[in-house]
Amino acid sequence: MADPDRIYTAALVVIGDEILSGRTQDANIAYLAKWLGLAGIRLREVRVVPDVTEAIVGAVNALRHVHDYLFTTGGIGPTHDDITVDAIAAAFGVPVVHHPDAVAILTRHYGDRVNDARLRMARVPEGAELIANPRTQAPGIRIGNVFIMAGVPAITRSMLESLDGMLPGGRPVLSRTIAAWTVESAVATLLAAVEKAHDGVQIGSYPFWRDGRTGANFVIRSVDAAVLGTTATALIAALAAEGIAAVDGEL
Amino acid sequence: MADPDRIYTAALVVIGDEILSGRTQDANIAYLAKWLGLAGIRLREVRVVPDVTEAIVGAVNALRHVHDYLFTTGGIGPTHDDITVDAIAAAFGVPVVHHPDAVAILTRHYGDRVNDARLRMARVPEGAELIANPRTQAPGIRIGNVFIMAGVPAITRSMLESLDGMLPGGRPVLSRTIAAWTVESAVATLLAAVEKAHDGVQIGSYPFWRDGRTGANFVIRSVDAAVLGTTATALIAALAAEGIAAVDGEL
Repeated sequence: MADPDRIYTAALVVIGDEILSGRTQDANIAYLAKWLGLAGIRLREVRVVPDVTEAIVGAVNALRHVHDYLFTTGGIGPTHDDITVDAIAAAFGVPVVHHPDAVAILTRHYGDRVNDARLRMARVPEGAELIANPRTQAPGIRIGNVFIMAGVPAITRSMLESLDGMLPGGRPVLSRTIAAWTVESAVATLLAAVEKAHDGVQIGSYPFWRDGRTGANFVIRSVDAAVLGTTATALIAALAAEGIAAVDGEL
Repeated sequence: MADPDRIYTAALVVIGDEILSGRTQDANIAYLAKWLGLAGIRLREVRVVPDVTEAIVGAVNALRHVHDYLFTTGGIGPTHDDITVDAIAAAFGVPVVHHPDAVAILTRHYGDRVNDARLRMARVPEGAELIANPRTQAPGIRIGNVFIMAGVPAITRSMLESLDGMLPGGRPVLSRTIAAWTVESAVATLLAAVEKAHDGVQIGSYPFWRDGRTGANFVIRSVDAAVLGTTATALIAALAAEGIAAVDGEL
């Protein structure tokens, strides 16, 4: 059962030479972060590692013990460069086996065209369960608190949908954005003061430059909707006192 | 002096609650990866950590000793949530000081409007040098093999431009993409065989789904242009032998 007062945390290991070469722009970090946020789980660390067994084992074992959940993306396809399952089995010290339900799913899906490469996608660390993938059939894998997902964003999202509502979490971090056409350095002192005056609140300041003007979004975060509202009102008032018109929302 | 036969590696620590909340899509990883690649430096690991001193110190100290270069992005602005400089000074065990050249740059830029918040951007770990930022003046920072960059992509790029040609590297990893309208699992065996037959070559297989069809890009990587060509020719031939028409280039 979820404990609403507990802080649930997660980490993500992105597995892929294609991200580290710059060939592919990662699209899973932000999506998973938001998905976890809605479930009341905070993404606390991401590591991007190459398609190298030791690098995957090291990252998985460093992170799985210190977070409630660990996700991985990438490296679970049918080709020789897909080594995630073997690496995670090594991290757990268990052998790799063919999961009978995965074999059944793939055999049903491919029919006569099933082959060794396709059945590679039925391989799991011993003791693992499957995560459904309605999109392209080959399943994701759960072992302990580790969730092994595809790298292709549409497939990752399909697997996350299968997990909707399944993972215990705490109170979601709520956020509200106040913005202004101002340079950050003109409001740094008041931002710090407003944050300090409100318990359990973080205010992040994110500058931008657009059409020759400088602005900043101030993102207020708290698990308490009432505190969020009080802080936003205080921030708008503090900006007004400096002659700065605040926008209630993101610029 | 750069040694062309040595492999130069780098890591990146992305500092930012805004990335871990999913509010902001990172755009620096891929850009830095390509910039490093052109310089013959391989990006080997990325860690995304929150705006928390211990998390930054831990990641920086874990990575700076095992790579030739460590980059950080984010957290060097004028506001209270910008704690990167203090955290990296802590990682090195040195105090934070105002760099006189940075004070001069900011005083010249802001004139009468210089204030404590703006001079915050002149703070550096003791012993550090500046990295020029032609775009918005407030400089990046280099201490030892650690390069402290802004989080806003346009500013990060401006700082990287100032470093163009400055960092010793080895032979760049070259890549060539062969593509086909095929499912990966039909060609897994031949891909592995072609990779194995060519020394020092990696072949990554990246599937995609488009307009109801399935395809894959096969990215061949090597530091040797001749080996890259030989491998590409062998891969095209191996695909043709299976009746699969290869495209020379990315689909």
